[in-house]
Amino acid sequence: MPQTIISLSTRGAGLYEFTHEAEAFVHKSGLEEGLLTVFVRHTSCSLLIQENADPDVRRDLDQFFKRLVPPSTDPSMRWIIHTAEGPDDMPAHIKAALTQVSIGIPLSGGRLMLGTWQGLYLFEHRDRQHRREIVLHLGR
Amino acid sequence: MPQTIISLSTRGAGLYEFTHEAEAFVHKSGLEEGLLTVFVRHTSCSLLIQENADPDVRRDLDQFFKRLVPPSTDPSMRWIIHTAEGPDDMPAHIKAALTQVSIGIPLSGGRLMLGTWQGLYLFEHRDRQHRREIVLHLGR
Amino acid sequence: MPQTIISLSTRGAGLYEFTHEAEAFVHKSGLEEGLLTVFVRHTSCSLLIQENADPDVRRDLDQFFKRLVPPSTDPSMRWIIHTAEGPDDMPAHIKAALTQVSIGIPLSGGRLMLGTWQGLYLFEHRDRQHRREIVLHLGR
Repeated sequence: MPQTIISLSTRGAGLYEFTHEAEAFVHKSGLEEGLLTVFVRHTSCSLLIQENADPDVRRDLDQFFKRLVPPSTDPSMRWIIHTAEGPDDMPAHIKAALTQVSIGIPLSGGRLMLGTWQGLYLFEHRDRQHRREIVLHLGR
Repeated sequence: MPQTIISLSTRGAGLYEFTHEAEAFVHKSGLEEGLLTVFVRHTSCSLLIQENADPDVRRDLDQFFKRLVPPSTDPSMRWIIHTAEGPDDMPAHIKAALTQVSIGIPLSGGRLMLGTWQGLYLFEHRDRQHRREIVLHLGR
Repeated sequence: MPQTIISLSTRGAGLYEFTHEAEAFVHKSGLEEGLLTVFVRHTSCSLLIQENADPDVRRDLDQFFKRLVPPSTDPSMRWIIHTAEGPDDMPAHIKAALTQVSIGIPLSGGRLMLGTWQGLYLFEHRDRQHRREIVLHLGR
């Protein structure tokens, strides 16, 4: 079964689209029917399928998660113990837990069965630059 | 590999069960062992496996998400930018991000390996009527 | 396709690791490439891939969810209807809805493609002791 690892460079928290990379991998495989499994190999970023039309949706999503889980320096987050890797680290783990580490997308006629407005995103929760690995696995 | 799209009509926010439709599809396939992947083709509704016994559980679940993510007209949500599609639209995207877009359920002896109290639900987050597409994919 | 059910005993809310059990199952199967699907057969506990290094991460995660969804006896949770099974029951369903019921992890060279810091956990949301069933399914 075809499998690959794609690598994304992130420059701060937010959503990074990789729908095209996933579609290109599916196309190259020549597989008509099957299941694409997307898996992210980290615990401070996650996966999300979201609207690919209005960029404000992504901005609002990022904003919601920042408000729900503020940095550990925020007075409301004083209970956090794991602060050694910076004020955005533990909130990043929490945001990752609230979203998804893997997503399965069925194929039909050689194409991902995404809805019209669905895009595939890496949701970065750390502030600094990171290199993130995503596994794409095509199965039956 | 067998695959189908089921279509559900929703009449406002809440949980809509489709366990029977999924079981019927599995039964019809004749497959004994395998994996059912459920995928929803929208970004303002999502998937959930939850208790199928007491309907109050579904009511409380819906209530929790409404309180965690109120409409964008709510004073606490003034920061939302994406309001063009109505006050329930951006909260719907957020609730979808907090739940799941795909779920994998293994089969054994031709049946979904759901626990005794597990039902399969579409979680609608929009107020108006919608027609929602769910992909069912049976693989190995 | 190989499949098994593993059973975990939990003693109160928190994260219980089962990475080794999953790896042992994959190793025993002899499969080199494929996809492991993990599915939990309950609605008041869930699955999580999280950092396996600093145990404080797990403590903080558990703490966050307890603060976001306090017991139904908490004044802020008076709106909960489903209280018959105890003050930790409905919050457990909510926490399960906010995390994941199934996770797919690709295999390569006979090993799970987990990142260096990723561990596989059952996230127990109930206070009392429970016996929890997790399905492991290896597919192509």
